[in-house]
Amino acid sequence: MLKIAVLGCGRIGRMHAENIHAHPRAELAGVFDVYAPAAAQVSETLGVTNFASAEDVFLSGDVDAVLIATSTPTHADFIEQAVVAGKPILCEKPIDLSLDRVNACANSIASSDLPIMLGFVRRFDPGHRAVRLAIEAGKIGELHQVVITSRDPGMAPDSYMEASGGIFRDMTIHDFDMARFILGEEVTEVFATGSRLVNPVLMERLNDWDTVSVVLSTASGKQCIINNSRQASYGYDQRVEAFGNEGMVISENRRPNMTTLHRAEFTGQGAPLMNFFIDRYSEAFAAEIDAFVDSIENGVAPEVGFEDGRLALVLAEAALKSVIEGRAVKVSEFG
Amino acid sequence: MLKIAVLGCGRIGRMHAENIHAHPRAELAGVFDVYAPAAAQVSETLGVTNFASAEDVFLSGDVDAVLIATSTPTHADFIEQAVVAGKPILCEKPIDLSLDRVNACANSIASSDLPIMLGFVRRFDPGHRAVRLAIEAGKIGELHQVVITSRDPGMAPDSYMEASGGIFRDMTIHDFDMARFILGEEVTEVFATGSRLVNPVLMERLNDWDTVSVVLSTASGKQCIINNSRQASYGYDQRVEAFGNEGMVISENRRPNMTTLHRAEFTGQGAPLMNFFIDRYSEAFAAEIDAFVDSIENGVAPEVGFEDGRLALVLAEAALKSVIEGRAVKVSEFG
Amino acid sequence: MLKIAVLGCGRIGRMHAENIHAHPRAELAGVFDVYAPAAAQVSETLGVTNFASAEDVFLSGDVDAVLIATSTPTHADFIEQAVVAGKPILCEKPIDLSLDRVNACANSIASSDLPIMLGFVRRFDPGHRAVRLAIEAGKIGELHQVVITSRDPGMAPDSYMEASGGIFRDMTIHDFDMARFILGEEVTEVFATGSRLVNPVLMERLNDWDTVSVVLSTASGKQCIINNSRQASYGYDQRVEAFGNEGMVISENRRPNMTTLHRAEFTGQGAPLMNFFIDRYSEAFAAEIDAFVDSIENGVAPEVGFEDGRLALVLAEAALKSVIEGRAVKVSEFG
Amino acid sequence: MLKIAVLGCGRIGRMHAENIHAHPRAELAGVFDVYAPAAAQVSETLGVTNFASAEDVFLSGDVDAVLIATSTPTHADFIEQAVVAGKPILCEKPIDLSLDRVNACANSIASSDLPIMLGFVRRFDPGHRAVRLAIEAGKIGELHQVVITSRDPGMAPDSYMEASGGIFRDMTIHDFDMARFILGEEVTEVFATGSRLVNPVLMERLNDWDTVSVVLSTASGKQCIINNSRQASYGYDQRVEAFGNEGMVISENRRPNMTTLHRAEFTGQGAPLMNFFIDRYSEAFAAEIDAFVDSIENGVAPEVGFEDGRLALVLAEAALKSVIEGRAVKVSEFG
Repeated sequence: MLKIAVLGCGRIGRMHAENIHAHPRAELAGVFDVYAPAAAQVSETLGVTNFASAEDVFLSGDVDAVLIATSTPTHADFIEQAVVAGKPILCEKPIDLSLDRVNACANSIASSDLPIMLGFVRRFDPGHRAVRLAIEAGKIGELHQVVITSRDPGMAPDSYMEASGGIFRDMTIHDFDMARFILGEEVTEVFATGSRLVNPVLMERLNDWDTVSVVLSTASGKQCIINNSRQASYGYDQRVEAFGNEGMVISENRRPNMTTLHRAEFTGQGAPLMNFFIDRYSEAFAAEIDAFVDSIENGVAPEVGFEDGRLALVLAEAALKSVIEGRAVKVSEFG
Repeated sequence: MLKIAVLGCGRIGRMHAENIHAHPRAELAGVFDVYAPAAAQVSETLGVTNFASAEDVFLSGDVDAVLIATSTPTHADFIEQAVVAGKPILCEKPIDLSLDRVNACANSIASSDLPIMLGFVRRFDPGHRAVRLAIEAGKIGELHQVVITSRDPGMAPDSYMEASGGIFRDMTIHDFDMARFILGEEVTEVFATGSRLVNPVLMERLNDWDTVSVVLSTASGKQCIINNSRQASYGYDQRVEAFGNEGMVISENRRPNMTTLHRAEFTGQGAPLMNFFIDRYSEAFAAEIDAFVDSIENGVAPEVGFEDGRLALVLAEAALKSVIEGRAVKVSEFG
Repeated sequence: MLKIAVLGCGRIGRMHAENIHAHPRAELAGVFDVYAPAAAQVSETLGVTNFASAEDVFLSGDVDAVLIATSTPTHADFIEQAVVAGKPILCEKPIDLSLDRVNACANSIASSDLPIMLGFVRRFDPGHRAVRLAIEAGKIGELHQVVITSRDPGMAPDSYMEASGGIFRDMTIHDFDMARFILGEEVTEVFATGSRLVNPVLMERLNDWDTVSVVLSTASGKQCIINNSRQASYGYDQRVEAFGNEGMVISENRRPNMTTLHRAEFTGQGAPLMNFFIDRYSEAFAAEIDAFVDSIENGVAPEVGFEDGRLALVLAEAALKSVIEGRAVKVSEFG
Repeated sequence: MLKIAVLGCGRIGRMHAENIHAHPRAELAGVFDVYAPAAAQVSETLGVTNFASAEDVFLSGDVDAVLIATSTPTHADFIEQAVVAGKPILCEKPIDLSLDRVNACANSIASSDLPIMLGFVRRFDPGHRAVRLAIEAGKIGELHQVVITSRDPGMAPDSYMEASGGIFRDMTIHDFDMARFILGEEVTEVFATGSRLVNPVLMERLNDWDTVSVVLSTASGKQCIINNSRQASYGYDQRVEAFGNEGMVISENRRPNMTTLHRAEFTGQGAPLMNFFIDRYSEAFAAEIDAFVDSIENGVAPEVGFEDGRLALVLAEAALKSVIEGRAVKVSEFG
């Protein structure tokens, strides 16, 4: 049994703790949160250690690996400390909001060959993954276009938005990773446009956008379109479409159930889409833990690693520059 | 150009007149209705002869074939007269509400080899027909079960119901023909159950049912389930499912369009199903005329003939007996 | 934490053991199987007691409740013993293949008010349950017709079929319970027809059928159609449709994922339906354990109890009689 | 009856001639084609005049209106001549491949108030139109994003491609008009990217692209994404999605029928999408004629007029400039 500790007992940390607890080949080695009551609650419910500090976690002989689900500004530090401590890492995205800090972190851990996995959970969604598998199996021939629709069910609280780093680094970053996952080839150029339509006052104040459209291109001419909104009234809208010269494969939205209602006013599903990311990606979060355990057990590099986290951030930076300058930005401008 | 006259200018007759008018290889030779103004209206709009009597139609040298869309009690007489006059016939269902009258009519026309086609229009629906074609193409292997869902969008006026001959002879008769079409083998046994749920008072008075479930069996053990209701609030519900040892094929409901609406309350189609039989089966009615023209031009027997009309009525009689006696009724009891 | 022991460590017992292990308010108290190695494997993996006998389970002070997943002939005995021991019971269906034995068991436990829950897992499926909830919420008005499609992905081994008690007691029994669940009113009459189409030789030998159609009626005239096949090549086909005077609600088949493939040959899902009942009803099996725990914790009768198990068997007996006698059989004939 | 003559008897002209012939309030006044046999064939089949020249059509007292379906380079001249002759016009898109010529034509007809309608047929598609109607009815609240997927079933012959004016003026122009129709607000900025993936050799030679992604923006910040491919192996892919703050509405692809096939290898439709534009937009082409007749009968401006044709071409020019310059191009650069 692989003993994994969880740092950060917020909404995501708690979910990860439960998934580790339920995993057949892993056990929860303990939890930590700077806000002690949050950790205490998880520690009591699941009957595990409540570590007094992150340092205690890294130093503990009863911890084989760590899952970092603390606030973003702590990620890079904890990654560096975990590497020093020799603990494999599963870290929530993003690594950091600053590309410089991410690059510095990359340098500091460069000599390590510990498994460091990034929490781009959508890669583990059975539906989105089936798109990638269909492409690999040649079901659509040569890939030409990808369309990623990714709309949140609703705006997060203002405090979250203020610390988020902006839509590209906070929200689109998942789609940048998905684009790279599906395209199977590096993005070379980014064009983005942003609007303030959901909450113009807040967006104006934060110099941010709540509605964006992005076009990515690769060297071979593959195109990827991403469209984001901070608020979809009908639920969490998560679709991935891949179009090739021999076919198309689409990962459609998941539903709470497959029940349809037919009445005089409408026929369809008498409910919106699933609208909480933990429900929508429940299978993916479990599969992510599974992949992390596999990676450690088998001593192979995680499917999605530190460099994937860094490259997604590079695309976010390019998108930001593109909106501001009104032009297609080359990724090579970011070294 | 094949010259076809239409007898009966009610809702269905008018539609047939327009379809003949639009057909590339046919022309409307004229119309007749006992209620002269009905015929006059069609005659003026489409610029064709308004015949003074059915006899005039049968005797006219300018009429190559007739389409009988008059009231049910006239069908058998007109069929006999048309046969005497040597005019190919497309007759709306049912031939007659009395099996004895139908059998007598069969005898009287037995020596004729004129094309006599029955208006079981659903056989010509592209969706339902695709079910039959898939079976013939071996797509589902050996056929085991058929499920026919057939629910009207709403109760017809009381006067119609009173003259209808009851649900089995009036409504289920379409499904009996569909069952024979899809099964590709004669039905040997019928079980039916009927309820009075939509309009119990009227049904009680008419000794009829508005909600029925029927199970048909064939000699080889194929089963067919039919479920009918006189009133589906969400529109005209017309589905055919065929299940075989290698697969299943389903003709789903047609929609006014393929547009879906996604809101917080529901996701789906912001409209009910098509709810008028002429709209739902618009393609089928056009294809039916086409098949009639083909049959005459090529001198081949119509795909659906007088005997098909008779056999559907036999199944209706068997169903009626089954409800009354609470047992499976053998079709052979009807000779 | 409620301590539940599992009797029977076959495929279903193991799954239940894992679900209990993962339940937040329950723990697995131990397992038992007459074939010791089966229990040993579960006991080792999950780190729980391997009881030497069923008696040991019933007598153990560390067992609060029992889940009976042993072979059918032991169910009634174990229920009686558990009642004597004062342990709440969750028993897999059917209670017994003999209605007499079930009636005797009912008598022997009549004075007990222990929670006794029957494992009609489909009631706990989110999709099927949404049908019931929609009806209760008035979404379809008055219920008129129910259509249950229930086809297994493939024939079980001959040895299973021989001991199964026949299709009605083994397979349709789930649908009889579903019919009662959805109808919300007792069935008064049963008509059934059976065919031997999947494996005629075996069916002939067992005097059983592999393909059946059943029509149920209630006193108020509600109708329910069930169609079963022992083998659906495209996967496990599990649908429930409820039709009322104001609408229709359908629980459609669950899919492995929501990914669709579009190629020149077809557009749709490049995979069959889920085809293993444990996968198809994974959410339901977990919800069933949850309901059992709730029932015990709150001291309320389980939603689906012993009498539900008995009444489903009565419908199976009536169906069997109906096929043999070719008539609608009144449920009252079974007392 | 409105007498309409058709100029041009190619594939589209013939279809229009048949639709006019079948229209209840219009009749086909005759046809013309520079290639006389093409016109002769239509003239004979439908029994109408075969005009010797376009001039004869414009001068004929038996022609109330003209439909221009000749080759693109003749459109502007014929529009000018028809205006001089006082005949209302329905002209196939594009007006001309040269924006200068279109502007000159606009000047020369500026003083006329004749109905001049452009053949942007997709506006008349029931599905796409339902999107517009849903927006107007407030079903999705304020519009934020539009996604137009528009992929041809296959590359046209090289000769067609050479004369097409390039993908933006030939193919995307339909989507530019659709964007304007759905957005309900003028586009102010265009970004486009083009790739050569379907037929790189031909595209290289023509300095054209076969795969493009376009992002349009309006002054209020609405965004519209268009993705085009010259070749979709699975058929003619035509979808329109509109996303607003209260919901989303999607016009999905039309199907040849609603029949689905379920087998071990897949479940879905055993056929690709409709793959011929005349079939896919059959209802739209009929509705377009209807709108033209309405416009003339009621003396109101056509819903889609000359200026709509000009503005779609402006967007095509902007897109072309954007691909070449790698930046968002302001529409105002085109005056």
